[in-house]
Amino acid sequence: MNPNWILQRAHVTPTRRALIFEDQSWTFEEIKNISVHRAKQLATLGVQHYSRIAIIGPSQPRLIFMMYACMHLQCEMVMLNRKLSKEELQYQIEDAGVEVVLVDDEDISLIPENTPHLLFTTIESSEATSINIHNEWSNEQTISIMYTSGTTGFPKGVRQTVGNHQASALSSVLNIGLSEDDVWLCVVPLFHISGFSILVRSLLYGNQVKLYKKFDKEQCVNDIAKGNVTHMSVVAVMLERILQGLEEKDSQASPKFKLILAGGGPVPVHYLERASRLNLPVSQTYGMTETSSQTATLSNQDAFRKIGSAGKPLFFNQIKIANSTMPNEEGEILIRGPHVTPGYIGRFSDKSSTIDGWLHTGDIGYLDEDGYLYVLDRRSDLIISGGENIYPAEIENVLMSHEAVREAGVCGVEDDVWGQVPAAFVVLKTTITEEELLQFCRGKLGKYKIPKYIYFVPSLPRNGSNKLMRRKLKEYIM
Amino acid sequence: MNPNWILQRAHVTPTRRALIFEDQSWTFEEIKNISVHRAKQLATLGVQHYSRIAIIGPSQPRLIFMMYACMHLQCEMVMLNRKLSKEELQYQIEDAGVEVVLVDDEDISLIPENTPHLLFTTIESSEATSINIHNEWSNEQTISIMYTSGTTGFPKGVRQTVGNHQASALSSVLNIGLSEDDVWLCVVPLFHISGFSILVRSLLYGNQVKLYKKFDKEQCVNDIAKGNVTHMSVVAVMLERILQGLEEKDSQASPKFKLILAGGGPVPVHYLERASRLNLPVSQTYGMTETSSQTATLSNQDAFRKIGSAGKPLFFNQIKIANSTMPNEEGEILIRGPHVTPGYIGRFSDKSSTIDGWLHTGDIGYLDEDGYLYVLDRRSDLIISGGENIYPAEIENVLMSHEAVREAGVCGVEDDVWGQVPAAFVVLKTTITEEELLQFCRGKLGKYKIPKYIYFVPSLPRNGSNKLMRRKLKEYIM
Repeated sequence: MNPNWILQRAHVTPTRRALIFEDQSWTFEEIKNISVHRAKQLATLGVQHYSRIAIIGPSQPRLIFMMYACMHLQCEMVMLNRKLSKEELQYQIEDAGVEVVLVDDEDISLIPENTPHLLFTTIESSEATSINIHNEWSNEQTISIMYTSGTTGFPKGVRQTVGNHQASALSSVLNIGLSEDDVWLCVVPLFHISGFSILVRSLLYGNQVKLYKKFDKEQCVNDIAKGNVTHMSVVAVMLERILQGLEEKDSQASPKFKLILAGGGPVPVHYLERASRLNLPVSQTYGMTETSSQTATLSNQDAFRKIGSAGKPLFFNQIKIANSTMPNEEGEILIRGPHVTPGYIGRFSDKSSTIDGWLHTGDIGYLDEDGYLYVLDRRSDLIISGGENIYPAEIENVLMSHEAVREAGVCGVEDDVWGQVPAAFVVLKTTITEEELLQFCRGKLGKYKIPKYIYFVPSLPRNGSNKLMRRKLKEYIM
Repeated sequence: MNPNWILQRAHVTPTRRALIFEDQSWTFEEIKNISVHRAKQLATLGVQHYSRIAIIGPSQPRLIFMMYACMHLQCEMVMLNRKLSKEELQYQIEDAGVEVVLVDDEDISLIPENTPHLLFTTIESSEATSINIHNEWSNEQTISIMYTSGTTGFPKGVRQTVGNHQASALSSVLNIGLSEDDVWLCVVPLFHISGFSILVRSLLYGNQVKLYKKFDKEQCVNDIAKGNVTHMSVVAVMLERILQGLEEKDSQASPKFKLILAGGGPVPVHYLERASRLNLPVSQTYGMTETSSQTATLSNQDAFRKIGSAGKPLFFNQIKIANSTMPNEEGEILIRGPHVTPGYIGRFSDKSSTIDGWLHTGDIGYLDEDGYLYVLDRRSDLIISGGENIYPAEIENVLMSHEAVREAGVCGVEDDVWGQVPAAFVVLKTTITEEELLQFCRGKLGKYKIPKYIYFVPSLPRNGSNKLMRRKLKEYIM
């Protein structure tokens, strides 16, 4: 049994500041009161305990209050990604079988028509019904569901339980430490585990979150240089912009600033060197939706000694390489621990997430002789673009649904800004222009998944069993 | 599933310093290697996985290595209190049905004759057998067993599981924070939960422990004033001596020193005032063997605002007052959470430790309107003398076993040095001197339990149902 984090945190440290947004702030007691009230308003509108709902909105306090209200009702929250197309969202809403989508009014145009929904303003102006809010949660209760794509191109809804989130937050605190005056800057999306885990940690640790609606380089640099914040999570593309911002201003990180956690793909070594000159501690981390955030993190002290490594497993986690008996042998990365998802929902609900308790990530890597993890290739030709995961199969499926297309293959190509962007290789049946094909994709894929390049080719590289060899695609353009 | 703490800590931070004793120190890697070797030596001598053993020895590194060796073997360790009499130890050894007692050579005279035992030197010089050390522990596995007396006077062996210890350490870190350079000074006995929990925290947090063989005022004051240590656990009598030591030297606590956790009974308010003048942060805490250490802790900031309070529950814990519906209502203190023991061993193994998941402490207290706990009376007329719990019934049982004694009643009386000491009230059948009676007690009770005062009285105060009213005893001497 675990406490209802929101009630317990407000009980333990009611007057501590919990959230800062623009020129407003809220204590844990205030956040509890607002979220309990929202839960009662949701109840009035028919949202019941333990129901499965979806939620979408920009990063603002009202989104956090709404999420916490759902947590009071012990709902399973499907976190919808604002960057997806309507078709992609439609798939998730249907696959999850959600009862209703809670939508920030700003985002109403993002969701498919005819989706049963409640606008945030409707909820916020509703009457409040008296309800029973439980002050204990079980370990097994699903709090959040996030969709992640697989090799098939069909996104899978990953369960993240109370126990998963708690283990992740507690493992992390044993790694990076904790002080009462820590302030986490949240510029990553709340619908991703990178953002939501900042909220979870805040509730467990009792520390402040400073929330931005969007990543803002100038503001970020200012907060880091002045020491208004102590920690933040970023993807490589954000880190680069922060470094640039500090360099432009000839500024340095404040000594009060403690740590940048850099995840969502590898961080180029020269970023680390620049960060070091700017007095900015950076720890590379390796994690995923299925592990409710970090699994391994490289300490800042080891940054140069173990260049390119994602570090050691966090305290409650184990990492091994499949079929490997020696250090430095490459193979699939396997993960075990209380932070690993118990499984999926919807069409993949029968699929087990682990084999003998081990999550098979599909990622390729090795452990060196000191036990440091090096991630060589993200799973299944995964493309990571600005921290967003893109699975080639998803884009290929869309391209191949066009009647002019016979075959399609997608791979990631290097990009100075985003790390990687998707490039498509298409074998045609009948004539079509690049622009027509891109137009076709636009309604069906999130913007960041629209191929940056389309190459028309006579055939695709395939192996003996006719399987597409995506890694060979790159050779076409090199 | 949880990691074997010793292996995992050595894996995650092998080169960090783990232990300091006199002029020696050990890293986590070194401690792992020694303890694994000891486990293999124990195996040679016939100690098997999962067996129940007892352990006794002064606070020295070799005791810690031996405990960790037993933990590798997943033994249930009965922690024997060095201050008990042979008869008392005999009871525990028999009740627990231990296979063998591991004895530091220094303590061989403390254990009953004919006890199956292994001396530390025997173990340390034995051959090592190759064994399989598991790298995972289950939540339910019992790590330690500590005896605590009850109202009946028969001590109960309390199970403390992996999950109990972990929940306690993790709750505590969310309360007091963590920094990589924290150093806990351990001057409290390792056979008590106050001491053993310092070891558990060190393994989970990766921080250093500085161990003293015995409490030493001068050394303590020096370590605090110089900032050699950052945290320590004390009972009130030690706190007083530390304050005295700092005052005598006209010294102050170093700014590096972060916190004294003061448990094992109430701390007089003027100690807190003196500590404040000495720049020494003190947090009062309430906990017990059954909760694997702290359940509630008062933050230093609240020390004067909530004088006399033991604070708020730690994050994963809940506290309520039996049959109370309003703040400030007195009643029995009930505790719930993952740190609460699953139960007892030996003659009390059928007795449930909780009712509907709540531990009934027998202690009396109240929660104020802000949810702060005030402990008014420790359970069942418990006497706390220098941090050691003494149950009147234990002493009464011994006194009444003397043929000259008709009735006996024991209560605690104030003492400047120890907080409380036991006083006995005796109704005689036949004549006997005070000295003869004390001599009779000496073989049967630990020194600290020998009554400081014996009063011969014509009758004892009893209520309508003839139950001894121990609180009334004090009135005889006031």
